Amino acid sequence: MSRLPLPPEIDAFLREPNPAVIATLRPDGSPHSVATWYDWDGELVLVNMEDSRRRLGFMHRDPRVSLTVLDRESWYRHVSLLGGVERLEDDPELVDIDRLSMRYRGQPHRTRDKPRVSAWIRPHAWHAWPPGSFTPSP
Amino acid sequence: MSRLPLPPEIDAFLREPNPAVIATLRPDGSPHSVATWYDWDGELVLVNMEDSRRRLGFMHRDPRVSLTVLDRESWYRHVSLLGGVERLEDDPELVDIDRLSMRYRGQPHRTRDKPRVSAWIRPHAWHAWPPGSFTPSP
Repeated sequence: MSRLPLPPEIDAFLREPNPAVIATLRPDGSPHSVATWYDWDGELVLVNMEDSRRRLGFMHRDPRVSLTVLDRESWYRHVSLLGGVERLEDDPELVDIDRLSMRYRGQPHRTRDKPRVSAWIRPHAWHAWPPGSFTPSP
Repeated sequence: MSRLPLPPEIDAFLREPNPAVIATLRPDGSPHSVATWYDWDGELVLVNMEDSRRRLGFMHRDPRVSLTVLDRESWYRHVSLLGGVERLEDDPELVDIDRLSMRYRGQPHRTRDKPRVSAWIRPHAWHAWPPGSFTPSP
């Protein structure tokens, strides 16, 4: 793992609407992982979930998470971020889920009658694979 | 999460060469996640890595893992398996990595001069998303 700040090519990769998987910790300490939409603003990762999702409780209990972002074109090429949930916030106007839905689907989120919560994650370390595949060509 | 055995449609999904992310536990208990090839024989999950990979040490220390398998066509559709590493085995003849490489690339693994290790993972629980998307049509 490398510490932040992220190199520009990693930052640019994360700004694309790539597939992602978030890993959280269950109460017994075992890992839990699911596919997730995310966004990256250069400082924090945004994820958003219905308030009934179990990983919300997991993040509240232990804020340590890992996010693996896969290249849309070649999934084995990926970046993982290790970080912590800095805050959990209700999303009553669905602003954050609409932001994610626009990013991934180009339209506002379809389901609008379920309470949702945003998690803002601050990464503190990262790694990328394969090594060198994110380095700009000389 | 549901307990095993897996329904036939989940079993069939896992047999496809889909993208996957494996989450392991770092020594401080935080989650670690990376993209991975895997195979599924109906009982155990096979993953394989160079013997220098840090997650090998993580799995040796704490065998609890989570594997999220994404649909190749529509990545948000996914299955997660919660399980434990049942055994770690050297792969001196590269039999297991060739099996994975054939599955994903249709050819034997290219790099043949690095020692590799297989992890055999026994899942004990699973969940799928979206609900019902794996159910055969009536």
